[in-house]
Amino acid sequence: MTAEIIAVGSELLTPQRVDTNSLFLTDQLNGLGVEVVTKSVIGDDLNRLADAVRRAVSRSEIVILCGGLGPTEDDLTRDAVAAALDRKLIYHPEITEVLEQRFAQLKRKMVEVNKRQAFLIEGAEMLPNERGTAPGQWIAESDAHVMLLPGPPHEMKAMFTRHCLPRLARIVPRQVIRTLVLRVAGMPESDLDQLIAPVYKKYDNPATTILAAAGDIQIHLRARCSTEGEAAALLVEVGWPIELLLGERIYSRNGQPLEEVVGEMLRERHSTLSVAESCTGGLLGERITSVAGSSAYFLGGFITYASRMKVEWLGVPEDIIARCGAVSKETAEAMAMGARRRTGSTYALAITGVAGPDAGGEKAPVGTVYVGLADATGCSVLHRQFIGDRTRIRQFATQMALDMLRRRIAL
Amino acid sequence: MTAEIIAVGSELLTPQRVDTNSLFLTDQLNGLGVEVVTKSVIGDDLNRLADAVRRAVSRSEIVILCGGLGPTEDDLTRDAVAAALDRKLIYHPEITEVLEQRFAQLKRKMVEVNKRQAFLIEGAEMLPNERGTAPGQWIAESDAHVMLLPGPPHEMKAMFTRHCLPRLARIVPRQVIRTLVLRVAGMPESDLDQLIAPVYKKYDNPATTILAAAGDIQIHLRARCSTEGEAAALLVEVGWPIELLLGERIYSRNGQPLEEVVGEMLRERHSTLSVAESCTGGLLGERITSVAGSSAYFLGGFITYASRMKVEWLGVPEDIIARCGAVSKETAEAMAMGARRRTGSTYALAITGVAGPDAGGEKAPVGTVYVGLADATGCSVLHRQFIGDRTRIRQFATQMALDMLRRRIAL
Repeated sequence: MTAEIIAVGSELLTPQRVDTNSLFLTDQLNGLGVEVVTKSVIGDDLNRLADAVRRAVSRSEIVILCGGLGPTEDDLTRDAVAAALDRKLIYHPEITEVLEQRFAQLKRKMVEVNKRQAFLIEGAEMLPNERGTAPGQWIAESDAHVMLLPGPPHEMKAMFTRHCLPRLARIVPRQVIRTLVLRVAGMPESDLDQLIAPVYKKYDNPATTILAAAGDIQIHLRARCSTEGEAAALLVEVGWPIELLLGERIYSRNGQPLEEVVGEMLRERHSTLSVAESCTGGLLGERITSVAGSSAYFLGGFITYASRMKVEWLGVPEDIIARCGAVSKETAEAMAMGARRRTGSTYALAITGVAGPDAGGEKAPVGTVYVGLADATGCSVLHRQFIGDRTRIRQFATQMALDMLRRRIAL
Repeated sequence: MTAEIIAVGSELLTPQRVDTNSLFLTDQLNGLGVEVVTKSVIGDDLNRLADAVRRAVSRSEIVILCGGLGPTEDDLTRDAVAAALDRKLIYHPEITEVLEQRFAQLKRKMVEVNKRQAFLIEGAEMLPNERGTAPGQWIAESDAHVMLLPGPPHEMKAMFTRHCLPRLARIVPRQVIRTLVLRVAGMPESDLDQLIAPVYKKYDNPATTILAAAGDIQIHLRARCSTEGEAAALLVEVGWPIELLLGERIYSRNGQPLEEVVGEMLRERHSTLSVAESCTGGLLGERITSVAGSSAYFLGGFITYASRMKVEWLGVPEDIIARCGAVSKETAEAMAMGARRRTGSTYALAITGVAGPDAGGEKAPVGTVYVGLADATGCSVLHRQFIGDRTRIRQFATQMALDMLRRRIAL
């Protein structure tokens, strides 16, 4: 079985907007063993939309439309699907009643135009909208099933999960899709691919996708089988050699981001952490505290952007900054030691570097990053040279710092 | 003239990937006065792809395909377009030569399979790829122009800008599209829309799009006219009443984000800033320092996540925390005053709040945020109650803080 997703709305054809509803729907459909074979975005244009629906229904068993169910004249999904399937639109007074109650609950007055939402395509089942006013519709059409869902993501997700998934589960032949997600820090994508391609290239199933961000690579292995057991066995067959090749560079096997993995390690060991940041300006603290419950291990940090602050707050000796520079091994070490001394944390991470685009010099060109890690045994410093814009370099630097801590704790 | 964009590649049909190339292309096409009327994503499937191209060519003057130009068997764009247009694929040995040179430069050996990239569709012009190996193609087909571009964004963007834009500029009837972007902080989307809808709803041109993020709303007015003068006049006609209605809530008229606007204000006044963050954990510092050159006005900050750090680093009196709580007007004030005292900055911003999802109590439920702003005249504190998840509440809080500073400086 295959599926097509059609996002409706001219606002999705502007340079500012992407359709993200289809990512949720794809994930849900994949979970049932259904592949999405085409996605499209169509503006508020009756003919184009009807044409797209007609073609989708002719070649895929599942067709999902999102958006265009509102009360205004721009909302054409109902009309377009009715035209495509050559069915009438029928007014349902009982839906108007429900809408009126809905508006009363929201303490708003329902205006006449909202009655447009009470039209169902001939033969359609109404899908209740618990989170908004526009009802959805479910239509069986010869070999295909067509769903009309609202555009706002929280309405769409609730309606799909509650009313479409159970219906789809009865229709779709049972198939299992299982995914293994390995995450790797601090390795260039090309090096990683060269290492593991000989393993995964031999297999169409599981399908392998590699997603690379700054200092962070995700390897997705997706197995499609008829039983859980087969899928699990296939993921081991391909995943295990990859895990052996990558070794301790893998920081998570369940999709968790690095800040969560490090947070769990700290929590388990009743250890605490503090940070001192220069070029990352708070990003490291932000990532660590993005994890709910991080107050259990994160004490706090210093954003020592000006050199004076490094001296005053962290006790970095002025002559080290004068002699070695604010971006240097020595400064990173003194920052980490200072942060640990000032907080009494088990570990302290310090980052100093040149994020660019300006500044940087012969000693420390743009992209230079030093990370210091202090604990009871002393302090070690790593140096890296990154390539990219300001955002990427800052991302690289925090990834490098968190991974350095992960490896230290894991020792 | 209208355009359609087709993104090719099965990896774009997974739950992890969105096609973003089309956003760049839409922006470029809009700049020429061309509307994008349909976007689609098609997997590596020859028939579906050929069918999509056939239909696109039959109804739009500009058809752009991205991806599927690589050397492997999955790369089907050349074959699909040839099939759709009923043209032959012709081998060009001179392209192979260029490819061989390219590989030699990259110190890689060209393998036989790369010769697939040397096939051009009958009648196509080759578009050189300065950033990669896959050449693009430009085909004139009766009323339509079809472009085959590579998938990697940096290759696609360079090729489009250098080789497609000049060709399109000769074809597209001259039309001007100008955009006014107003950004507004700290106003719920529904309140804003209620206020300004009576103005913009009267106009189809300029088209109005409202994009809302946590505490940050963008209003895009896009005017399509035959001359610059008409477009400018239209933007004033609609934009000016909107500006009057929103008044000082507008923080930028050119799309600049709030941290840049505040940064420029500080720089112009030779003022400096420091921060003290609790629930935002570094996000405020991160936003301020995301602006290149922020070291001119940003001194540094304290991430006082644990209460003890608020006392030790910022001198928040212990009895204030005990009596009023770490999330309180009094603590926010003491944090801001402390940060200013410890850094000597002109302004100091402090944030304390409950980002959730856990904790929070009767006094300070999840979503409570206090922002303190200290300067030479003393300290003021604002209190807000936000709704949303951890990420949104932290975003709201930093937006509120930056906007509070903007309004203070603008006084």
